Amino acid sequence: MQKRKVAVLGATGMVGQIYVSMLAEHPWFDVVALAASERSVGKTYAEAAKWYRDTPIPERMRDVRLLPLDADVIAQTGASIVFSAVPSEAAFEIEKALSARGLRVVADTAVHRMEPQIPLIVPEVNHHHLEAIRNPDAGFIVSCANCSTVGLVMTLAGLQRRIGLEKVYVSTMQAVSGAGYSGVPSMAILDNVIPFIRNEEEKIARETLKILGSYQGEFKQADFTVLASCARVGVLDGHSEAVFAELSRDTDLEEVRAAIASLEPLPGLPSAPNPPVVLRDEPDRPQPRLDRMTGRGMATTVGRLRLDGRTLRYNLLSHNTIRGAAGNAILIAELLVSKGLA
Amino acid sequence: MQKRKVAVLGATGMVGQIYVSMLAEHPWFDVVALAASERSVGKTYAEAAKWYRDTPIPERMRDVRLLPLDADVIAQTGASIVFSAVPSEAAFEIEKALSARGLRVVADTAVHRMEPQIPLIVPEVNHHHLEAIRNPDAGFIVSCANCSTVGLVMTLAGLQRRIGLEKVYVSTMQAVSGAGYSGVPSMAILDNVIPFIRNEEEKIARETLKILGSYQGEFKQADFTVLASCARVGVLDGHSEAVFAELSRDTDLEEVRAAIASLEPLPGLPSAPNPPVVLRDEPDRPQPRLDRMTGRGMATTVGRLRLDGRTLRYNLLSHNTIRGAAGNAILIAELLVSKGLA
Amino acid sequence: MQKRKVAVLGATGMVGQIYVSMLAEHPWFDVVALAASERSVGKTYAEAAKWYRDTPIPERMRDVRLLPLDADVIAQTGASIVFSAVPSEAAFEIEKALSARGLRVVADTAVHRMEPQIPLIVPEVNHHHLEAIRNPDAGFIVSCANCSTVGLVMTLAGLQRRIGLEKVYVSTMQAVSGAGYSGVPSMAILDNVIPFIRNEEEKIARETLKILGSYQGEFKQADFTVLASCARVGVLDGHSEAVFAELSRDTDLEEVRAAIASLEPLPGLPSAPNPPVVLRDEPDRPQPRLDRMTGRGMATTVGRLRLDGRTLRYNLLSHNTIRGAAGNAILIAELLVSKGLA
Amino acid sequence: MQKRKVAVLGATGMVGQIYVSMLAEHPWFDVVALAASERSVGKTYAEAAKWYRDTPIPERMRDVRLLPLDADVIAQTGASIVFSAVPSEAAFEIEKALSARGLRVVADTAVHRMEPQIPLIVPEVNHHHLEAIRNPDAGFIVSCANCSTVGLVMTLAGLQRRIGLEKVYVSTMQAVSGAGYSGVPSMAILDNVIPFIRNEEEKIARETLKILGSYQGEFKQADFTVLASCARVGVLDGHSEAVFAELSRDTDLEEVRAAIASLEPLPGLPSAPNPPVVLRDEPDRPQPRLDRMTGRGMATTVGRLRLDGRTLRYNLLSHNTIRGAAGNAILIAELLVSKGLA
Repeated sequence: MQKRKVAVLGATGMVGQIYVSMLAEHPWFDVVALAASERSVGKTYAEAAKWYRDTPIPERMRDVRLLPLDADVIAQTGASIVFSAVPSEAAFEIEKALSARGLRVVADTAVHRMEPQIPLIVPEVNHHHLEAIRNPDAGFIVSCANCSTVGLVMTLAGLQRRIGLEKVYVSTMQAVSGAGYSGVPSMAILDNVIPFIRNEEEKIARETLKILGSYQGEFKQADFTVLASCARVGVLDGHSEAVFAELSRDTDLEEVRAAIASLEPLPGLPSAPNPPVVLRDEPDRPQPRLDRMTGRGMATTVGRLRLDGRTLRYNLLSHNTIRGAAGNAILIAELLVSKGLA
Repeated sequence: MQKRKVAVLGATGMVGQIYVSMLAEHPWFDVVALAASERSVGKTYAEAAKWYRDTPIPERMRDVRLLPLDADVIAQTGASIVFSAVPSEAAFEIEKALSARGLRVVADTAVHRMEPQIPLIVPEVNHHHLEAIRNPDAGFIVSCANCSTVGLVMTLAGLQRRIGLEKVYVSTMQAVSGAGYSGVPSMAILDNVIPFIRNEEEKIARETLKILGSYQGEFKQADFTVLASCARVGVLDGHSEAVFAELSRDTDLEEVRAAIASLEPLPGLPSAPNPPVVLRDEPDRPQPRLDRMTGRGMATTVGRLRLDGRTLRYNLLSHNTIRGAAGNAILIAELLVSKGLA
Repeated sequence: MQKRKVAVLGATGMVGQIYVSMLAEHPWFDVVALAASERSVGKTYAEAAKWYRDTPIPERMRDVRLLPLDADVIAQTGASIVFSAVPSEAAFEIEKALSARGLRVVADTAVHRMEPQIPLIVPEVNHHHLEAIRNPDAGFIVSCANCSTVGLVMTLAGLQRRIGLEKVYVSTMQAVSGAGYSGVPSMAILDNVIPFIRNEEEKIARETLKILGSYQGEFKQADFTVLASCARVGVLDGHSEAVFAELSRDTDLEEVRAAIASLEPLPGLPSAPNPPVVLRDEPDRPQPRLDRMTGRGMATTVGRLRLDGRTLRYNLLSHNTIRGAAGNAILIAELLVSKGLA
Repeated sequence: MQKRKVAVLGATGMVGQIYVSMLAEHPWFDVVALAASERSVGKTYAEAAKWYRDTPIPERMRDVRLLPLDADVIAQTGASIVFSAVPSEAAFEIEKALSARGLRVVADTAVHRMEPQIPLIVPEVNHHHLEAIRNPDAGFIVSCANCSTVGLVMTLAGLQRRIGLEKVYVSTMQAVSGAGYSGVPSMAILDNVIPFIRNEEEKIARETLKILGSYQGEFKQADFTVLASCARVGVLDGHSEAVFAELSRDTDLEEVRAAIASLEPLPGLPSAPNPPVVLRDEPDRPQPRLDRMTGRGMATTVGRLRLDGRTLRYNLLSHNTIRGAAGNAILIAELLVSKGLA
């Protein structure tokens, strides 16, 4: 297979750095363009990126010159797939413009997620929603789910399909990296918890219902209730979530375990974790520091299953900038290629 | 009024230090005995206590010699009220023995909380449960609720009474001080969340139902559902809780606010906060570092009220070693005195 | 004594909030003006300040309307002393303009510290340098030392005077509040140390030598060597410093202790700590969380004195936004009043 | 080359876990025995070890049964090299006994470090000291340097040899893992710095002088002064050190850089980092979170070189449980094999 040429928009930011790290040696993709905001254009990647990761900048990316966020310029590089980690306000225009030129755009930001024609994808969960992209009105934009939604839907999918869901209440304890490098001042979070993340609770509710809903020409949302309560905690990476799920019928823990574990891996996709959901039996897991890199950051870890009547409690952990952002987008792109959509 | 002579058992530990700080200048109580485990006996308090607080050891306590955890020795000091912060296993015997000698024992630990004759008290919420102490079978032991239960019942009490509760799901983010000074290693909690605290979820459920239940000769538990999911976070003091409460009937936010705020202060008691529940309107409160000392650590702070149908979400914050332990016990003792029970 | 009318410039920021807290009930000063940058002007203080402290906004300050950073406007309020916590770039102009109008300006920022006619004051250490302000060329600006310099000179002063100093090497471990509320992202400091603070090492060296130098018509710097190595650590408030001082002659620990403790308090000044330097004998002090509020945040705590030959090692701790900024400035103002200079 | 059979004593602890991780796939060593304290004996490694690392327990180690800390038992496994991470008090007897049986013991703990016949080795720095092991009186014990000494001597070695050292003052900011998993309670270090680590300053001084000293039949210590000031900070792994070094002659930064970088790698040894010392030019490096894994945790990173007269300031960072403990010991063992000493 010939490698696809890909571009990364917003390459210098925190999610951009994950893209650069994951794509540097990708077997299917060849990075031909890194783009960033005005002040970085023309600099080399090593000059422009305030590298925050504990592994070095990939050698082959160090000297790449940054391009502007201009659809014509990106299109001229020959890229056929564009990963966009541009902040929401900037993203809309350029993503639409690239899509109009026939490029496949996989977008991290929230701007397109709830558009009626644009699929919102967590590959193992709702790859069939990619059908929507065949709709010519949709353009070729695929959205990634919000970082705290991804782990949730990966654990709910099997429960919904095998047992049924009535209500889901979820309390999140989210890592500071979810707000970007400078998003959470240390003065705000040291010795503290901030019980608020703007728009996050609304995103979790509506995205979960879209992803776990159906697509038959149009998206129809799933018919259970989702309510979230979101907090920021002093953790670098990895969103923890405490879930209370009211199931549709009586069951037992064995069936619950089997249901959650039933989410199928995507064989043959280089970034697909196997298994996508890891169940742990220790009494005190999952923990962000110990479990966030499970499946190279692409798996969701589940623990502490407790069933009282029809109410299931469990805890999950998912890496927010890998599985919750760049890694999910790369997996979507792999899925597009494998389905002949890119 | 003549000051009551009081003793503190377990005076060198973390909760013991709160007792010592709060009682040093107490208008009603005079500390005549500090007791601790074997290795501290005979030392002065300043020698024996590894003082962890950011205010100095009260001058008058520095040179007090530590007594053994021996009921006879304590009784001989003339103390009529005993505050016990002794770990659970050690507490049972000595608390029973002191109670048998006619001393009033206010106990922090879990051992007596669910005994059928012993009242479990959060003063503003269920002071009428102190009736149980008049039962000669009960002895004179009053139990404090668990640190994460106190804030919860202070916020649920008005909702239960005015609107009615069907189910309460609560996700806690608890401070490390709740586990004692050496309870949570830094290796365990830096850049991490631990989604497990032994027995905590069970305590919250059964204590909440006892405290919000009725007493008419015997305790009858409240008839709604409580399920908790408890996590430890890297915060020094102050337990955060995200609550999902299903109410018994339709209502609106105004009525909800009024219900939560309806918990009445206890006028005349020196340690009683007024108001006991503080409602905040900022979008990002309560926060442990900013709100834990509200009402000198004795008030519970509530914020982020959200009502969807009959499901209410809110966040609360309560100081776990003040309101959740020593402070609550001192308030109970004040209540006993004011009711002529001590 | 009639209260002096005072103004605070930069009142909404982190240091501004300390001013507001310390001045709200000050026995000598009456706050008649709070000024801040453009976007806050006209709002009430409670609206404009993102209050970050764990004590509430002082009631009397809540509804004060914010004024612009305009010398004419400030002068019209009748203020005779102006505390300035304005960032460096903005400070220069307005401070000069206010000084030219005859107001006394006590400035936190670095812009004037090394000006040849402007005294740089840590009151207990070099109050005699205030003579310089009588020089009509100087205007009426007095500078505060940098936050990490204050504790250092308070501990060196007695050593210099009684024993003599040859070289001082100091390694700082500085709190994040020193960089302002948003200065240090949590992504930068969680599980980390940043061994660099821009210009800080240079400031410590030259300010220490000016403060510990002489003034006789002009400032002459002290004649020992100072070299600093500055790091940021994950602490909210309180700068820790490890000092290696080469003394001018043989001595013993007893004399060293006496020398450090010989710094005299300033009797009669409301904010002056007594003693200004607190020596602790425990093996593991001073610690920021336990010692930063010593002397209501105005004292410097010293511990771990070790003498090898003529090399003295010790550790110090000083509250960076109280003693290292607003508190030091208020103490300067009190000194000005007591000397009849304001 | 046939693999050497090796044993790990103290395999379940924090340093023991690093051994297990690093040795699981080692090309020269084959783990034939894991030993631990009484309560773990007979359990599988996966049962006994409270695994704290973010990578899984190596598969091949999971089911290994733990042996007792008994020299006969260890000897019977056929191990010829023994890595000992046993706490100091327990280590002395068994290490002596194993050595007497002819096994090569590489010891992490402090008990043998200053024994006159036992070499204290940081391989790149003083591999020639291994001569001492040929002395039949010495037995076959080689000691690892203390975790905070390793990085220091790796950076001083070239300076000493090429320029000369007069005095070294070092201020450390050490990670909590250096005290073992439960060594530093979170209550002690959150929002805090502890300016004291028992015996650490003495160890740094005397070990540095032994390692940088000479061996000709006996050890002679280097003839410069070393004084340390040690602090614990809220970092998981990676010791930061601020160094003030007075050099023996005038020089310039270029020569200083070359001197520090002149430490030679050990070619052919599987765990040897190349280069062993990494110089970084960014103004704000090294940082523990970003640099501790440099050279797979085996390199020391240096930055911020500043020269004033003959006084050199710099900052270094070294991984305390890899390079500062297990990794250094494994590198010693590789060196022993390559020299035909094991």
